[in-house]
Formats: sequence, structure tokens, C-alpha cells
Amino acid sequence: MQKPQTCSIARALDVLGERWTFVILREALSGTSRFADFRAALGVAPDVLSDRLATLVAAGVLEKRPYQEPGSRARHSYHPTEAGNELRVVLGALQQWGDAHCPWEGGPTVVRRSVEGDRPLHVAFVDDTGAEVPLDAVAFVRTAAYPT
Amino acid sequence: MQKPQTCSIARALDVLGERWTFVILREALSGTSRFADFRAALGVAPDVLSDRLATLVAAGVLEKRPYQEPGSRARHSYHPTEAGNELRVVLGALQQWGDAHCPWEGGPTVVRRSVEGDRPLHVAFVDDTGAEVPLDAVAFVRTAAYPT
Repeated sequence: MQKPQTCSIARALDVLGERWTFVILREALSGTSRFADFRAALGVAPDVLSDRLATLVAAGVLEKRPYQEPGSRARHSYHPTEAGNELRVVLGALQQWGDAHCPWEGGPTVVRRSVEGDRPLHVAFVDDTGAEVPLDAVAFVRTAAYPT
Repeated sequence: MQKPQTCSIARALDVLGERWTFVILREALSGTSRFADFRAALGVAPDVLSDRLATLVAAGVLEKRPYQEPGSRARHSYHPTEAGNELRVVLGALQQWGDAHCPWEGGPTVVRRSVEGDRPLHVAFVDDTGAEVPLDAVAFVRTAAYPT
């Protein structure tokens, strides 16, 4: 039996598993940074949006920066941290799986391409020599830290 | 504005986002198949376990197979489908992120290794020539199917 706190999947989902959190992050990684713009993009209730932004800030995934427009009160905008940016791998893996196994009739709405050369990308297991490893050659191995 | 049903991340999370679903899947991918064994491994309430297994079967991630032991009533066991097996990429990405950014004091409890050669693995973006592409060279590009 593995207790939730020792499982990195469970810990990651404590941050990411709430409804709205991932789509808020998707918008943040696409350049949305202001409260009103998240609301307009997602149609999420303001109290839920406040709560999820606070979760993402507390988890170190987004950082809050003050800004002020002339004649308005001071506000905050929200920007991905390095940890937030690394969630692109998780988002890309979810997108790829959702398009393959829960397809929408209109086809994928977002695809992953390389900035240089504009090549199609996929998310996969890679070894320390840079070689892609097929799924049936991947082992999840328990370490000595695994609870007994 | 992208409506939830057109977003593959939102569709994937409709299946996977409920609490317990991912850890049940983690156990299934480690070889657990029987109701009593999921309960023993996770300590999850039976009604929640029934509900989550039904979600995973309905989504085509697990398949239900009948079995019967001598002197017992007929029961079902639960086995990953091809779609379930492909979720290893998502689980691997979550595990890697959780260990990097929400570390447990004891260190990672499970690591990803290649079956052949026992090399350390990570989850990453790969292009169609098999080359790994660094995060800052990955673009998420909207297609013509993206809702306007």
C-alpha cells in the first residue's frame, strides 16, 4: 500500500486535479495573464477563478505580479513559473491522449509543433541517450523509498 | 473562447480528473485487477471504487473480464485496454513533475526505466524524426477546428 503523500502522481493531482485548474493553466501558458481575460476566455465564475489562481500561486505554478493602469486601482496578473512551464509536458500528454481516445468530431483544435522547422511533435518516453523508448519497453520500478 | 467539449485536455480530464481515478489506474497498470486487491492497495471506500472502475470501463480505459474461483460466485476483474496503456505517458509526465516540483522527503518512490538496458527515462516532446525537442522550442498551435 502506497500512502497518497508518498506518490508523486497523487501529489501532482492535489495541485492539478481540481476542475478548472488545468484549463486555467492552459490559458496562462497561452499568454493570458489578467483576471478579466481568464474570465472572458473560460466563462468561469469569479469566486472559482480566484480560488484556482490562488491554488496555482501557492503551488508555485503561477506567480502574481502587481500592475496598475492609469486611473484604475492596483491589480495583479498571473504568469507561469519554471515549474508551470514544465507542465507543458503533462498538458501535451493529456491533449495527445484526449485527441486519440476521446476525439471531438471536428478534430484536434490545438496541435504541438516545433518552433524551428514546424515539425509535428508527440509526447513520449526518452532515455538518457536521447532515444525514444516504445511504451511496451517502459518499466515503472519501485525504489527503496517505496513504502512497505 | 474554447468550449470544454472541443478541448482535448478537458475531455481527458472528464475521464481522469476525479479523485482516485488516477491512482486506481496506476494500480491497474501495475498488475492489480481484482476489486479486493484495489481496496487493499488503496484503502478506498467500496462505493467510490465501484464508481471509478465503472467510469474507467465506460471510457474504454479498463476492460471487465468475468472470472470464478471454485466455491465462489462469478466476479469481474479489470484490465488496461490499449487506450489505458497509452495513459502511461500521462502518468509518467505527472510522476516526473510531482517528483521535481512537489518532492516527498524520502525521494521518488517509483522511477521510469527501460526494460532493455535498464536506462533512466523521462517524458518529453519528440519530433517526427525521433529527436527530443526542448520545452522552449515547443509551440501549441491552434488548428482551423479551433472555435472562434
